Amino acid sequence: MKARIYITLRAGVLDPQGKAVVASLKTLGFDEVQGARIGKFIELELDGASREAAIERIGKMCEKLLANTVIENYRIEVD
Amino acid sequence: MKARIYITLRAGVLDPQGKAVVASLKTLGFDEVQGARIGKFIELELDGASREAAIERIGKMCEKLLANTVIENYRIEVD
Repeated sequence: MKARIYITLRAGVLDPQGKAVVASLKTLGFDEVQGARIGKFIELELDGASREAAIERIGKMCEKLLANTVIENYRIEVD
Repeated sequence: MKARIYITLRAGVLDPQGKAVVASLKTLGFDEVQGARIGKFIELELDGASREAAIERIGKMCEKLLANTVIENYRIEVD
């Protein structure tokens, strides 16, 4: 089974990496860029038959290891 | 306009961070995990009216700055 996890910074959390990307893009002439937020995109390959059970397990993986839930949100998609 | 960019390692490129994530997940008891690939997820906020033009411009941003196209692929979505 394949799953995709999107980890993004919560609203209100400063994103210095995003600010640096915006500044660099403007320097390169991409003046239309107003903001950027950088997150993580994780593709997981896992055993198991049930989509629902996989989503629950991946939620636990995010809480325990993959995301810092104090400052990050996560979203899970399972095929 | 909002855009989302998914940057992933090309097939065949080693992903040590992904390997570390798999090992850590197994240590935590998530034995069903067989593989993980770690990529980037960038949310862009940009000016401009045309979706088509935005996609073309963002392609250039990826080629010039956001992705290392020797080892990474990118995928663009514009609302």
